[in-house]
Amino acid sequence: MFIDMMVEQETGRLLSREKTLGRWRHGTLLQGRHRCPFGPYFKVALNTRTSSTTYPEPFASRMVGREKRPLGDIFELSNFGVNLTRLIPGACSALRHAHSKQDEFVYILVGCPVLITDQGETLLSPGMCAGFKAGTGNGHQLVNRANEDVLYLEVGDRTAGDSATYPDDDLQAALDNDGEWQFLHKNGTPY
Amino acid sequence: MFIDMMVEQETGRLLSREKTLGRWRHGTLLQGRHRCPFGPYFKVALNTRTSSTTYPEPFASRMVGREKRPLGDIFELSNFGVNLTRLIPGACSALRHAHSKQDEFVYILVGCPVLITDQGETLLSPGMCAGFKAGTGNGHQLVNRANEDVLYLEVGDRTAGDSATYPDDDLQAALDNDGEWQFLHKNGTPY
Repeated sequence: MFIDMMVEQETGRLLSREKTLGRWRHGTLLQGRHRCPFGPYFKVALNTRTSSTTYPEPFASRMVGREKRPLGDIFELSNFGVNLTRLIPGACSALRHAHSKQDEFVYILVGCPVLITDQGETLLSPGMCAGFKAGTGNGHQLVNRANEDVLYLEVGDRTAGDSATYPDDDLQAALDNDGEWQFLHKNGTPY
Repeated sequence: MFIDMMVEQETGRLLSREKTLGRWRHGTLLQGRHRCPFGPYFKVALNTRTSSTTYPEPFASRMVGREKRPLGDIFELSNFGVNLTRLIPGACSALRHAHSKQDEFVYILVGCPVLITDQGETLLSPGMCAGFKAGTGNGHQLVNRANEDVLYLEVGDRTAGDSATYPDDDLQAALDNDGEWQFLHKNGTPY
């Protein structure tokens, strides 16, 4: 079976074209929590991962209002990830952080988040983008201080051996051999 | 000196904030072919690479009307590239092709290109995305058959040892050790 798939930006609806038993079915539009007849793709697309931060407390609670849709995973991309991420008013993209190995890139689709780096604050708007080169140590974070939602694309590669530093919080993180983030206090003790 | 930079979607204008001699200058807006006082960043952003295809003829001529702005390069990202690409009516994204190592992802911002794969044609529209996993051999291409421009983001990683196949053309390509594409006929003779 072959599936072509696309995701609608605003709704997260998954538009698919599937071939089963030698016959094409065009433009199937799936809404909501559709039970997936094809495999793991749809579940990934429709689960918005609102609670999927891997931060330990007290940091996990600060990610409320952030919704990630992992678009790249839908297509089984493994070299990099692409998320369609929504921040409701007051929400933020992540703790302010910097990666040792992973390049990151964001492109603003809707709304006006504030980008915070070591150099201060910059107001972004739709059509603007920012890149965060691995290894600079310059922490970055998007915060939605406006009254409307922010929607943006974020891209990050999956280089092995990555780690992250958090200039504003008592936290450090490293990717383990299974690709899971392990979080420690800055003094090295685990959470 | 430190520079924050963002690129405006429609115009390709580069909005920067720079710190020189300990003083921040906010919201510098640069238009057109600005002579770059800061380094290589601006040149990359403002050169639209309309003629930068590396295809040999007769294929290079078929890329007329495709304009790429390498956004990721502006921020010196090296693990993956992000292009903001415009297709005027009649233009296409590339020859239909498939990568052996590089994952690819596109997200449509403006217009309605046709996605062509081994499974046929799918009309895309703004907010839709598609991913092309490395190694499937399923060639893909976007073609703008509409009367308005198409604008999309494309992401691709830079895995070493990549190669590309072109199901519809007498062409094959491989990345050499310098990261340059080398093009051959399908029988192995060079162009």
